[in-house]
Amino acid sequence: METDELLDPPIGPGWKGWPHAAPALHRSSVAAQGWNLLADDLPLPLAVIRRDALHGNLRWMQAFARTQGVDLAPHGKTTMSPQLFAAQLQSGAWGMTVANLTQARVALSAGATRCLIANQVLAAADLAALAALRRRHAPARTVFLVDSLAQLALIEAWFDTHSPSPQPFEVLLEVGLDGGRTGCRSHEQALQLAQRVRASAALQLVGIECYEGLWATGRSADDAALVEGLMQRVVALATACDDARLFECDEVLLSAGGSSIFDLVAPRLKAALSLPVRGVLRSGCYVTHDHGSYQRYMAAMNTRLACGHGLHAALEVWALVQSIPEPGLAIVGAGKRDLSYDLEMPIPARWCPCGQRVPLGAPAGWKVSALNDQHAYLRFAVDGAQAPQVGDRIGLGVSHPCTTFDKWRWMAVVDEDYGVVDAIVTHF
Amino acid sequence: METDELLDPPIGPGWKGWPHAAPALHRSSVAAQGWNLLADDLPLPLAVIRRDALHGNLRWMQAFARTQGVDLAPHGKTTMSPQLFAAQLQSGAWGMTVANLTQARVALSAGATRCLIANQVLAAADLAALAALRRRHAPARTVFLVDSLAQLALIEAWFDTHSPSPQPFEVLLEVGLDGGRTGCRSHEQALQLAQRVRASAALQLVGIECYEGLWATGRSADDAALVEGLMQRVVALATACDDARLFECDEVLLSAGGSSIFDLVAPRLKAALSLPVRGVLRSGCYVTHDHGSYQRYMAAMNTRLACGHGLHAALEVWALVQSIPEPGLAIVGAGKRDLSYDLEMPIPARWCPCGQRVPLGAPAGWKVSALNDQHAYLRFAVDGAQAPQVGDRIGLGVSHPCTTFDKWRWMAVVDEDYGVVDAIVTHF
Repeated sequence: METDELLDPPIGPGWKGWPHAAPALHRSSVAAQGWNLLADDLPLPLAVIRRDALHGNLRWMQAFARTQGVDLAPHGKTTMSPQLFAAQLQSGAWGMTVANLTQARVALSAGATRCLIANQVLAAADLAALAALRRRHAPARTVFLVDSLAQLALIEAWFDTHSPSPQPFEVLLEVGLDGGRTGCRSHEQALQLAQRVRASAALQLVGIECYEGLWATGRSADDAALVEGLMQRVVALATACDDARLFECDEVLLSAGGSSIFDLVAPRLKAALSLPVRGVLRSGCYVTHDHGSYQRYMAAMNTRLACGHGLHAALEVWALVQSIPEPGLAIVGAGKRDLSYDLEMPIPARWCPCGQRVPLGAPAGWKVSALNDQHAYLRFAVDGAQAPQVGDRIGLGVSHPCTTFDKWRWMAVVDEDYGVVDAIVTHF
Repeated sequence: METDELLDPPIGPGWKGWPHAAPALHRSSVAAQGWNLLADDLPLPLAVIRRDALHGNLRWMQAFARTQGVDLAPHGKTTMSPQLFAAQLQSGAWGMTVANLTQARVALSAGATRCLIANQVLAAADLAALAALRRRHAPARTVFLVDSLAQLALIEAWFDTHSPSPQPFEVLLEVGLDGGRTGCRSHEQALQLAQRVRASAALQLVGIECYEGLWATGRSADDAALVEGLMQRVVALATACDDARLFECDEVLLSAGGSSIFDLVAPRLKAALSLPVRGVLRSGCYVTHDHGSYQRYMAAMNTRLACGHGLHAALEVWALVQSIPEPGLAIVGAGKRDLSYDLEMPIPARWCPCGQRVPLGAPAGWKVSALNDQHAYLRFAVDGAQAPQVGDRIGLGVSHPCTTFDKWRWMAVVDEDYGVVDAIVTHF
């Protein structure tokens, strides 16, 4: 993948939301078309990113990391968009985080010079690809996670059969929680693995990693206790590895941080070691934020940080009211194919009546009660003055941006009047 | 979209599951690569379609429709794959069903000469696109649904401002159920709308449509009563429209049928009218079937039809065990981005231990208890002899093929040994 082509690819025709009659256009040509969502220039449903909120989020998050003295390697799995990766890097991100080799390739091709694969790598096909990526993108760094002797044995078996040997792979040791996902459950187990990594020609230990996000509750006291306990384990392991000279690097990476309680994590990404320490926060969802789950986490964070609203929801999916078959029920033309539904139903955010160009806030009582593959069920008060009509456009917010991004190959970037000022593509 | 390019497009590189080192290849060149999933030639996760089950399903469903004296217009939204559309048409499908104009364009470009948009069309952008598609693909027919005077008014407003007038749009009148999705709730309301359609220069009424699938239970007595009541309404409305000479066509289309209880629907797609009647079944999920919801519906159907297993699950997502962090828990590298989770968790179907080439059936006790974005939690008996290991490959079945297809841009078609014999692409 060449960087220019990746950042300025052809878009459409035939991609959902792309104007039916428009030819394929390079991303950089989209703004000049003068399209406006509310002028019906684009078919619905269409996912849009509000430019001003996006740019505000990029700036706020980078300033937050700087203030905390940590670096940012945003999780790219959220958007898998080279254009957004480039924007994150230009805003000052130290690197990109990804979930696997296919994603790493996109991140490196988009310009990342540091790539953290926040996952176990062990398959022969993936190890070969990683070695090839490191050669192609040298001197870019690509780091992945280890959490078991079984994984180490598979990597060594692959490494030993490849001549000439590739450069040893840089790895972070993963600390996990009981009942959780990946990661070593005990200090002893982790330290034993670190010793085996130190003895291996295939791997170099460059830091410690954990992920707190799965246990976040939004209750500050509980979340603080969670982070306190987990990060104590990370620091204790880093200290033990440092004492035993198990790190093979110039600086030790300590990495944690989903998108829910990163303000509690960031101050803990520090340790007094014999080597310099770099704290790396991996939050990904901040880039568009959302109207649901992350908005609630942010409310708790705002209270803790006393910073006002730090992040703003930038992602909306617009769709058409196609039928009002019963009083109080509007059927809207977007569904499971277009919108997140894994945490909760989409949240009506805006309403633009048929023929109008200025969107209103969606009335507070409107709720999406269910989704089918291609439809949403919007419930509204029968006796309310504010009832949607067939042909109206509804802007739906989502809860969990990741599971909306993966439903779109492109999204329009819009200004405050919903004029299309740019576009992004995704690589899922 | 040109048909040749649509059916034989370039695939990869950088699409998930595509071999990391492979260049872009046209679909028709994939088989010659000699790739095998179980030889680790392709990175995981990877979605595959088992060729023999797919071909069996295509044949069985077409034979079923022929036996019942109805035609098949499979819902293309399930797969949105031009290659599968072409296979369905070659197997004898009368046409394709789709959910919107973007999908209709793919279906017509893939070779459908009859396209049923099983949805309300009313936006100016969509009506213009429909008129253009009808010109481009003439004499192909494209039919959509109407269910309200408000929709009719919007179509007429668009029609009246376009000179020269396009051909009148062919429409089916949609009958709906109280508490349901779209569709006229009462006979009187539907008949009034049919009269207004008859009087409109913009529209021609060519049939009656309903969708029973949302209410199917898998309990034969309940489902039979549901279909009986709904199809009586459809036939009564068709008869009233025929009596009043509201149809403007040579034959009347009666269409229903999701993928759950189509055996109950098919015999009801008949009516004694003054015009010939064509029953059109729209089932879409039969093409790959599944390991969950549709398998349970099929069990009830098999009892009713006394036909043995008619359809077989053809869709699997293969992924790697990346960690066994606790006894009884394997973390598998596929998640919400790769697999259906809207009806139930994925179902372990096959197991190929690391280094082996012959897959085993997954032990009955294995369950996926949760998914994150990129991970599945596979639970297994701690004291069982059959425990997965790090590096093993797991073939996961899904419940609801639609919500797995939309997570992949391509899928490998494999033989019984998991050799890659073809590929399909999707257009979501």
